[in-house]
Amino acid sequence: MIHPNMATMLCFITTDAEILPSALDSALKYAVNLSFNQLTIDGDTSTNDMVVIMANGEAGNSVISADSPSYVTFCEVLNYICIELAKKMARDGEGATKLLTVTVKGACCKKIARPLAKAAASSSLVKAACFGADANWGRILCALGYGAYNAGVDFSPENVDVSFISNAGEVQVCKDGEGLNFCEEKAKEILSQEKIEILINLKNGNKQASAWGCDLTYDYVKINGDYRS
Amino acid sequence: MIHPNMATMLCFITTDAEILPSALDSALKYAVNLSFNQLTIDGDTSTNDMVVIMANGEAGNSVISADSPSYVTFCEVLNYICIELAKKMARDGEGATKLLTVTVKGACCKKIARPLAKAAASSSLVKAACFGADANWGRILCALGYGAYNAGVDFSPENVDVSFISNAGEVQVCKDGEGLNFCEEKAKEILSQEKIEILINLKNGNKQASAWGCDLTYDYVKINGDYRS
Repeated sequence: MIHPNMATMLCFITTDAEILPSALDSALKYAVNLSFNQLTIDGDTSTNDMVVIMANGEAGNSVISADSPSYVTFCEVLNYICIELAKKMARDGEGATKLLTVTVKGACCKKIARPLAKAAASSSLVKAACFGADANWGRILCALGYGAYNAGVDFSPENVDVSFISNAGEVQVCKDGEGLNFCEEKAKEILSQEKIEILINLKNGNKQASAWGCDLTYDYVKINGDYRS
Repeated sequence: MIHPNMATMLCFITTDAEILPSALDSALKYAVNLSFNQLTIDGDTSTNDMVVIMANGEAGNSVISADSPSYVTFCEVLNYICIELAKKMARDGEGATKLLTVTVKGACCKKIARPLAKAAASSSLVKAACFGADANWGRILCALGYGAYNAGVDFSPENVDVSFISNAGEVQVCKDGEGLNFCEEKAKEILSQEKIEILINLKNGNKQASAWGCDLTYDYVKINGDYRS
């Protein structure tokens, strides 16, 4: 359980900034909820995932407190770093061939957008479909539904739009909860790229959240089927 | 989403017994919590899983109410049927080669035993290890830990015993939360059978619960990677 390919994560972040411990703590907690806590490889939480941040104050800046204007900048940079690290981990998941970003926008609050994004990114069926470049949007709506139920939040499938996006373009596959007559070949080309985004619009507000994951592949089964040999 | 190999489940049970609707309803709810709600193929809840029971009263028995002595017998038989159906579904999971039964005993209450059993049966890592016949008990303890956290119940890993059981025998791999020096070859033989039981003893009471699942295989990825083609 301490081998990195078990998705065990030990993350150390350092900064030269001078910042109050309380401000550093709250900045890290905020960033972790945006990033690592929205990361999923296989739904198995490791026993020793951790993130540590250390600030030595050697930059010589004015001390940053939670009230400082520079605190906002510090948080933005920290969020960026944590999200980039989370994305690298997702792409580096056992057997992964693709980075999967699920973005839920148009939510009335982040507390709804976050679990829905994570549910879709966590679904074995969605992940296997990404591996097979199969534009199976029904599985996405299904995951949003049980994700909302498990999180105890409201969800109206009849409002939902779904698109697939990658370097190869963008295709909308679902509008107002119903399937569109999209080009399957174009969708397959989009889903065959290494970085895929599933964009979900709840059309119920202006908040959004993302989650990161990877495809479920033969190599995931191979690597984890005989890990100790 | 309505093809059986998506784990969509439509279950119809009929009986000739004459039983009050309220008693039939409570008997079914109890049985479903013991059986179908402890079943997991891949963690993806389908949009249209359902169980219906219909009683036509043609048996000519005295009407069964929740207070009748025969209600206990009726519940026992119904529980048995539902559990057997759940096990058949688990074994019939997409790409499955093995039926996995996880039993948590020695719990102080069923509300603790149930989510722990289901967490271990749901873990992709545990399921892949079963496919590979790998006696990786650390993944089981890990799943018990996050399963307890997610369910909001207490869990003390330092008390836990774990054994693997099948037609080929039984091997204890963990005692009081620590690994035993077990025979790897024997464990691999036990885990190579078609029906595997993971027996977990919390040593903290006399309640128990089971969950049923299957191994995670190459064929699961194959079947679900290109479902619509």
